[in-house]
Amino acid sequence: VDRVGIVPGRLVSGADLAATFVFAVEGAIVAAAAGLDWFGVLVLGFVSALVGGVIRDVLLGDLPPASLCSARYAALAFLGGGIVIAVDEFVRAVPLGVVTTLDAAGLALFAMVGTSKALDHDINELVAVLLGTTSAVGGGVVRDVLLDRIPVVLREDIYAVAAAAGAVAGILALRLGVPRAAAMSIGFVVCFTLRVLSVALRWNLPHVPT
Amino acid sequence: VDRVGIVPGRLVSGADLAATFVFAVEGAIVAAAAGLDWFGVLVLGFVSALVGGVIRDVLLGDLPPASLCSARYAALAFLGGGIVIAVDEFVRAVPLGVVTTLDAAGLALFAMVGTSKALDHDINELVAVLLGTTSAVGGGVVRDVLLDRIPVVLREDIYAVAAAAGAVAGILALRLGVPRAAAMSIGFVVCFTLRVLSVALRWNLPHVPT
Amino acid sequence: VDRVGIVPGRLVSGADLAATFVFAVEGAIVAAAAGLDWFGVLVLGFVSALVGGVIRDVLLGDLPPASLCSARYAALAFLGGGIVIAVDEFVRAVPLGVVTTLDAAGLALFAMVGTSKALDHDINELVAVLLGTTSAVGGGVVRDVLLDRIPVVLREDIYAVAAAAGAVAGILALRLGVPRAAAMSIGFVVCFTLRVLSVALRWNLPHVPT
Repeated sequence: VDRVGIVPGRLVSGADLAATFVFAVEGAIVAAAAGLDWFGVLVLGFVSALVGGVIRDVLLGDLPPASLCSARYAALAFLGGGIVIAVDEFVRAVPLGVVTTLDAAGLALFAMVGTSKALDHDINELVAVLLGTTSAVGGGVVRDVLLDRIPVVLREDIYAVAAAAGAVAGILALRLGVPRAAAMSIGFVVCFTLRVLSVALRWNLPHVPT
Repeated sequence: VDRVGIVPGRLVSGADLAATFVFAVEGAIVAAAAGLDWFGVLVLGFVSALVGGVIRDVLLGDLPPASLCSARYAALAFLGGGIVIAVDEFVRAVPLGVVTTLDAAGLALFAMVGTSKALDHDINELVAVLLGTTSAVGGGVVRDVLLDRIPVVLREDIYAVAAAAGAVAGILALRLGVPRAAAMSIGFVVCFTLRVLSVALRWNLPHVPT
Repeated sequence: VDRVGIVPGRLVSGADLAATFVFAVEGAIVAAAAGLDWFGVLVLGFVSALVGGVIRDVLLGDLPPASLCSARYAALAFLGGGIVIAVDEFVRAVPLGVVTTLDAAGLALFAMVGTSKALDHDINELVAVLLGTTSAVGGGVVRDVLLDRIPVVLREDIYAVAAAAGAVAGILALRLGVPRAAAMSIGFVVCFTLRVLSVALRWNLPHVPT
């Protein structure tokens, strides 16, 4: 892990935990809205927060997955789900703009952590972009599959595309000689900005005419 | 593997195979009821019986998964599906109480075998509970996803919760100094009893009000 | 890898890439017909082409999966999806018979490559058949799950069954002393022929009466 750069490891680790919590709360809200009992809400909060990183680690052969090597991530994911069960009205009262901003930050962070981890495994750069994107959106995809829906990221919006764009930007910066932490921060900003702008300006990708 | 204790290894192994067979028959019945052809019935019997343990072994990095290291488990799973295809009426004539009891025994056995295996990998106790539960319910979840349904375990009943409770009970017993085999047996009894009682008494978890 | 035999390695490798491309184009067409935007079309082309082999490699513990160890397969899968986006009408103008034939060739090739790779890992022969079949049909299964459908291979036709029959034929030939490459070629012919005949003659497996 790069210890020289503008993003100290402890800050990334804290942000990683915060993003886990945000994704768990979001997943739990979706599960509660789908009418699941509290067990289902906890499971889908957990899945939303951790499965993207778990898939990345399985594909990298980095087993057991990092998020299962301590109780910290699982506990935080369950805490996020538990809060939705306990104070659902309160959670729903959070303004949508705040939720979108936190989610965009979580997306960008997971994408760059995943890309960086893939690069640590001497993986091809195109595949690193794919694994970074999978880290960021995999949990939501599996959540939607379990809820018997076409995953949201396949249907609309600049969501996975923002994650991929951030990963590409980070890797391009690395190629130009920017140090790892700074390059990943550039990717973070690209992903976050693209995602927030796409929501604010209602951008969508074109469909294939049928 | 613990060879001292009240549950000899050979008995566990025999029970593990029996549970595999029961889960395969159940999964095949669900697939046949959904109108699949006999290939689909065999596949879903196989998936129901083996995929929970396969997911556990993938996450533990214990590859190839134990159930794929000999033909024994796969053959037994296909046998279970084959029986449903051959003598479907006979299988359906088995009283529901018998099916529920056998299923609860299979659930409890898979949960405790999975928990025990996770602990053998020096995995955190909270994660061991999750992996034990996944071992027990993962096959049914993937079966339901393939049948394009919200997994039953997410929607109702004390099913995965019973598996998790058994895993917790087993780990607590271990912490109190109970030998491994006895501790896992305690977990088995907790899971089995909770599951059977929940069906008999129609317990359900509360939903999050929406 | 067997270098003595009637199928030189370079030919297999070229055919493997060709099959990847064909499966990606087919997956992308299905996704476009389901109304996904171009990002979803690219993702489902990629999934259709590569996920079967990825699941095989995860189960064999051969990580990172072979198709992620260079950019070649991913790039080809995206190229297949990109062509569907760019010239959809042209792709749809390809006669159905050509598509069926190419698909059957891809199915047979993936099945035999997967079976052969499993045998290289000293895996049980029954399990090698399962892994060969999974290599060939896994991508389509995950594609259909993401599209919120019961996978086509579970519902109809001699598709996975043809892959399994090819794997069985190849292994039987090996057992009779036929060299690896020739044995796998026999399996290829069995799978390809069975699949093409089943489409031409509209064979279906019987359903379990309910």
